[in-house]
Amino acid sequence: MNFDVIKKDSRSKARTGIIKTDHGSIQTPIFMPVGTAGAVKAVSQRELEIDVKAEIILGNTYHLYLRPGLSIFKKAGGLHKFNGWIKPILTDSGGYQVYSLAANRKITEEGVTFKSHIDGSRHIFTPEGVMEVQRTIGADIIMAFDECTPYPCEYDYAKKSMEMTHRWLGRCCKKFDETEVNYDYSQTLFPIVQGSTYPELRKISAETIASYEREGNAIGGLSVGEPAEMMYEMTELVCDILPYDKPRYLMGVGTPANILECIALGIDMFDCVMPTRNARNGMLFTTNGIINIKNEIWKDDLSSIDEGLDSYVSNNFSKSYLRHLIISKEILGAQIASIHNLTFYLWLVNQARLKINEGCFEDWKNHMVQKVMTRL
Amino acid sequence: MNFDVIKKDSRSKARTGIIKTDHGSIQTPIFMPVGTAGAVKAVSQRELEIDVKAEIILGNTYHLYLRPGLSIFKKAGGLHKFNGWIKPILTDSGGYQVYSLAANRKITEEGVTFKSHIDGSRHIFTPEGVMEVQRTIGADIIMAFDECTPYPCEYDYAKKSMEMTHRWLGRCCKKFDETEVNYDYSQTLFPIVQGSTYPELRKISAETIASYEREGNAIGGLSVGEPAEMMYEMTELVCDILPYDKPRYLMGVGTPANILECIALGIDMFDCVMPTRNARNGMLFTTNGIINIKNEIWKDDLSSIDEGLDSYVSNNFSKSYLRHLIISKEILGAQIASIHNLTFYLWLVNQARLKINEGCFEDWKNHMVQKVMTRL
Repeated sequence: MNFDVIKKDSRSKARTGIIKTDHGSIQTPIFMPVGTAGAVKAVSQRELEIDVKAEIILGNTYHLYLRPGLSIFKKAGGLHKFNGWIKPILTDSGGYQVYSLAANRKITEEGVTFKSHIDGSRHIFTPEGVMEVQRTIGADIIMAFDECTPYPCEYDYAKKSMEMTHRWLGRCCKKFDETEVNYDYSQTLFPIVQGSTYPELRKISAETIASYEREGNAIGGLSVGEPAEMMYEMTELVCDILPYDKPRYLMGVGTPANILECIALGIDMFDCVMPTRNARNGMLFTTNGIINIKNEIWKDDLSSIDEGLDSYVSNNFSKSYLRHLIISKEILGAQIASIHNLTFYLWLVNQARLKINEGCFEDWKNHMVQKVMTRL
Repeated sequence: MNFDVIKKDSRSKARTGIIKTDHGSIQTPIFMPVGTAGAVKAVSQRELEIDVKAEIILGNTYHLYLRPGLSIFKKAGGLHKFNGWIKPILTDSGGYQVYSLAANRKITEEGVTFKSHIDGSRHIFTPEGVMEVQRTIGADIIMAFDECTPYPCEYDYAKKSMEMTHRWLGRCCKKFDETEVNYDYSQTLFPIVQGSTYPELRKISAETIASYEREGNAIGGLSVGEPAEMMYEMTELVCDILPYDKPRYLMGVGTPANILECIALGIDMFDCVMPTRNARNGMLFTTNGIINIKNEIWKDDLSSIDEGLDSYVSNNFSKSYLRHLIISKEILGAQIASIHNLTFYLWLVNQARLKINEGCFEDWKNHMVQKVMTRL
């Protein structure tokens, strides 16, 4: 993997860049649609490419490890071959899902034992094991195994957890560096900054993570329920410590406003289930603000879903039709809404990139933050 | 509407033809994907056009009348404008759903009163009212209001019901001929032959329906649980009476084998929820036979879904990947399986058309009937 900063904004810490992987280039800042189990919910790979214009998608190690399981990735030649997505993929470490989905989980220095939420079978994730799992799944960018602390979190627990995450990172790096790729393209490992909402812990964690000098760095444990201002404070503090010339990935963030604010703080990569999950519930993000399409006011509105977006679903389907589909629980409603929201998210980060390159990001950002969060 | 028979098969009653409507031409024999509530379940309009190569789709009057309701069709300018499908549409009369879905239905000479399955509201469908409803929805081909008898059905009930359906047809035709189109394209009305599984009733009904000399004719009340041989017997008997130079539509049929056999008996148009409904349950129709994709034997099968079909989903996704999606209840699984099954159905009727035109339909049909129903 290779990363070049293209342009630095003069009035904020925003920057544009290009990440190069063996599956193609990614222009940053970028949003990565979440393809939990090897598929972005309700959106086909062709739609991701043509409509959404996604440049990289996410896979969840926890889900993929449990189902379909590793043997099929070995046989297929990795996740790209299995799901037909030929552009870059990033996998998380499985940590977050182990804590949020699995039953009977027990965290020790060795790793985490847990029961599958699917069939109750027992498993253990260790830093070394998760490296092997992600080698087998074969994403271009893989994540270190960490503990994602909840919010709120006691200082003592946050500190101990962070220290263990740092020790786990050492084991992840060792294992990663000792192992070879399974397929004919390279992989890179991103470590994750933790430290909850404590500035002193975040500072220590960012310095520790930076010292590993990996090709990119991530910030975890945010957007877990803390106030947005706290998230921005931690993000800014960490971004100022993490190396300038490596991509910075803020995990699990967020709303359109969160993304714009964090771009301004120096974040290059984002992922979040919000655009797809909320789409399935009828919440649309548009260039004019937020729409709850189930609302009666859209019943007879034959205008296109989002006149500000030049995309297939936005141009071809009306608010009224989409409302009818969502109200009627037609699968096509979830499809159209999901494609729309992802298209909007990718449009948003692309606009941010253009504005940074043009030197007019800050004013545009301040304007857009208000606009995109307006409830229509 | 205009219909021309292009080629008559020498060894069976199969024929090819072209139906011309103001929304374009339909090459027969044709299969019509069912778009119940103005959307084919899990398949977008673009996929219907590009992948499935659908030439006409169905809408259900009962569903569309209840939700989104008629006012939006008036405002949008008809269903085509509302759902963005610019090719021909056929709507059923709502009769079938009133009998199968609605509560507290009561059939009288006047029509059918019923309670909505959605909100319990009371409604009445009369032959005249259903013509007005279908004028408002604005399909190219609309259907007469009939009673679809169940199977088995007592002779006396079947006879009385058929006679009422005939009287209703008179009222439908009168109303239809007295009313104008609401939009800038023409509509045509197809009457429906009933008579359950009684040859003498089917004969009377076919003769009565033929006497109305409408632009096309339909056969209803079959594929409701009777043995396939009985369905073929009734279909053949009716086809031999219905005019040769008008399209014949066998409603709600059926399996790939049913369709091939009924093409051989002189049917030109088919519709059925089977390809989409079964797709959502993981049952795939392929050029080699039937696949239950949930079956363990497909777990590691990385071959394409159907090597005999040249289509996007068949070429780009493996049996193993589709199985994973269906087992994981990913919406994309329903999408891929539905597109595949519909693509197969359209491929099948298109192949039949080519074979009839080439003069080699009968042998091909006998071979394919065995092949497509083989359980793999």
